[in-house]
Amino acid sequence: MSYRDLNPSLRTIMTPGPVEVEPRVLRALSTPIVGQFDPEFTVIMDETMEMLRKLFQTNNQWAFPIDGTSRAGLEAVLSSIIEQEDVVLVPIYGRFGHLLTEIAQRYGAQVTNMETTWGQVFDPADVIQEIDRVKPKIVAMVHGETSTGCLQPLKEIGEACRERDILFVVDAVASIGGVDVRVDEWKIDACIGGTQKCLSAPSGMAPVTFNSRIESLLLERKKVEQGLTDLKASELSKRRMIRSNYFDLSQLMDYWSPVRLNHHTEATSMLYALRESLRIVLEEGLEARFARHQLHEKALMQGLQAMGLELYGDSRSKLPVVTCIAIPEGIDGESVRSMLLRDFEIEIASSFGPLKGKIWRIGSMGFSCRKKNILSVLGALEAVLIRHGAQVKPSEGTQAALDVYHQHQN
Amino acid sequence: MSYRDLNPSLRTIMTPGPVEVEPRVLRALSTPIVGQFDPEFTVIMDETMEMLRKLFQTNNQWAFPIDGTSRAGLEAVLSSIIEQEDVVLVPIYGRFGHLLTEIAQRYGAQVTNMETTWGQVFDPADVIQEIDRVKPKIVAMVHGETSTGCLQPLKEIGEACRERDILFVVDAVASIGGVDVRVDEWKIDACIGGTQKCLSAPSGMAPVTFNSRIESLLLERKKVEQGLTDLKASELSKRRMIRSNYFDLSQLMDYWSPVRLNHHTEATSMLYALRESLRIVLEEGLEARFARHQLHEKALMQGLQAMGLELYGDSRSKLPVVTCIAIPEGIDGESVRSMLLRDFEIEIASSFGPLKGKIWRIGSMGFSCRKKNILSVLGALEAVLIRHGAQVKPSEGTQAALDVYHQHQN
Repeated sequence: MSYRDLNPSLRTIMTPGPVEVEPRVLRALSTPIVGQFDPEFTVIMDETMEMLRKLFQTNNQWAFPIDGTSRAGLEAVLSSIIEQEDVVLVPIYGRFGHLLTEIAQRYGAQVTNMETTWGQVFDPADVIQEIDRVKPKIVAMVHGETSTGCLQPLKEIGEACRERDILFVVDAVASIGGVDVRVDEWKIDACIGGTQKCLSAPSGMAPVTFNSRIESLLLERKKVEQGLTDLKASELSKRRMIRSNYFDLSQLMDYWSPVRLNHHTEATSMLYALRESLRIVLEEGLEARFARHQLHEKALMQGLQAMGLELYGDSRSKLPVVTCIAIPEGIDGESVRSMLLRDFEIEIASSFGPLKGKIWRIGSMGFSCRKKNILSVLGALEAVLIRHGAQVKPSEGTQAALDVYHQHQN
Repeated sequence: MSYRDLNPSLRTIMTPGPVEVEPRVLRALSTPIVGQFDPEFTVIMDETMEMLRKLFQTNNQWAFPIDGTSRAGLEAVLSSIIEQEDVVLVPIYGRFGHLLTEIAQRYGAQVTNMETTWGQVFDPADVIQEIDRVKPKIVAMVHGETSTGCLQPLKEIGEACRERDILFVVDAVASIGGVDVRVDEWKIDACIGGTQKCLSAPSGMAPVTFNSRIESLLLERKKVEQGLTDLKASELSKRRMIRSNYFDLSQLMDYWSPVRLNHHTEATSMLYALRESLRIVLEEGLEARFARHQLHEKALMQGLQAMGLELYGDSRSKLPVVTCIAIPEGIDGESVRSMLLRDFEIEIASSFGPLKGKIWRIGSMGFSCRKKNILSVLGALEAVLIRHGAQVKPSEGTQAALDVYHQHQN
């Protein structure tokens, strides 16, 4: 049996990730590789760290990718700092708070959750009150919840954690590179980003950064890998030992520093991709990039509303890079998505859990976040909704978006 | 500060991995992506599984990549099947037996090791004797040890494990795609391969396969991810719960089957790369591919010996894709490697632990395993050794290799 040449359709990807990969990143991916300890490669590693610091707006020494998808980054941080029976507070306002909870529990944490209605975020004062009640070692929170399209303010929570000597871990997978994430200013101790969303690189790497507070904890738990040196294995108690080898940040620090102690074999091509995506982000500039995401968000929102659709979620806490739409009464959301993909080659997303079948989610992230795509999705959605018998105002969506763009130009 | 365009040197990579990536794989990497649940992508997932089954010579249903480097595959298998206090036997004959031990211990196993001199492998009868003494739940072994260039015969051990209802886990990271690996015939219950060695794709994915014996165990330990469904979390005891979420094979089964239950976001571009590398392997044919690796191994070995160098390790158990050379007395191994890289742009490897500074390792894997590279490395090594004052027989190395190639053609 023979397999065909790879030749996938050129989709317009308007989901909250993965999104269309920047053409320059695709070209970087096709670059011939060098060895993992080649001096040319270690320069690339160092440059990537330097650019990640800028992306995360931090002076942390440690900023490097975990070789796995975004949740590998979450697990690397949580598994490296959680010890058996540690108390962890995870405020949940969507699916990915559940994921943080799940990972923390699996590594033996006593997790306390607080929940708010999906589509809203927490008043920081409520979280701080719960912190004072629970007295956790770690607070872990999602910054941008793609499942609900909400953005949680973090600064006050970060400050409260620092005052109380609590570690503050933030999942910025969906926001990094598209929305302001100020690791140092917001007193975030460890922050995890994603490549396949606002960075417009493929999935498969998870940039993380952490500060010296986390580092101190890691060094206490550090164990040199068996078989690598002639040193006797350190006499760490089982309770304190970091469970995972792959995700052991203390070992990864030795790999991502001049020590270059062998751990995994770095995912060369993906690092090329990450480096190129970071170059693009920094060339555009963080502020300009965030403003671009807001402009296209505005055009998309006004277009959808002009069409007669209702947006889902509290607009005061909207995540700029994900726009959620209430599926109109009597319309089969999955049928609409299928027709969009089949006839227009445009992908939008459904959601999870309690929101399944109730909302669509449109991402406007990274390279996918551009005028052509916003106008295409509005036009196509209108056509598909009319075919499904929905009440939409013809032509209004695209016109409203064009108005936003024309106002912006003037 | 600006960062330069990515433009690494075109190295001749003759290490035991990562090796040069197939040009067709590099092109596949630059293919625009589609969404993770796009029908075109799930076809690509299914095709990749089908080709992995052929690569592993298995009828197992489960054959898919873990999104991480090779050791992510090892950890996924071990963490998913090891429960607290499980007895695991790991025979060690090089560095990567230590790694299996380390991972198993971190996940709570009681590991028993047996060791043999580095440069040799085990007589299967000795391993079976130890199995009968230790009575483990799992035997985990390395097939091809890149650290020593040795290949462990597995069939008798696999049969003994099956008779005793013991799970047999094999690290075939270095051998898969270059050396015969017969998962079903050798009664391997779970097998882990690598992409960056004989498959000549970049590092960053770890193909695994496992059979229904492993699957049964996984299903007993299965837990549906919190936040994904409205189901109450299953009441698994903490002892039995799979520790990692990212590496939980029971969840990955749902992702890699028609259920397509959301887990991670598949690393699209790396999957494109893996698929293309598998197409290349299957187009060449497994037997032809193994024979090609043996031909170039022969040319390399005869060349090195004709030059006057001494090979390291027991020739009866040599791994065909890695050739180890004893560094001649008085020669600084690292200085030779540096000059090879600097002046000839050829990379060869050193080794680990007790072999550090004692041997060089030359890989002949996948796309790097071709006549041009073998002849280049022989010529360059001769030149560099002469510059280092070593006693080598001028021109003999290349001539001996050419003899092997000419005999082969006739």
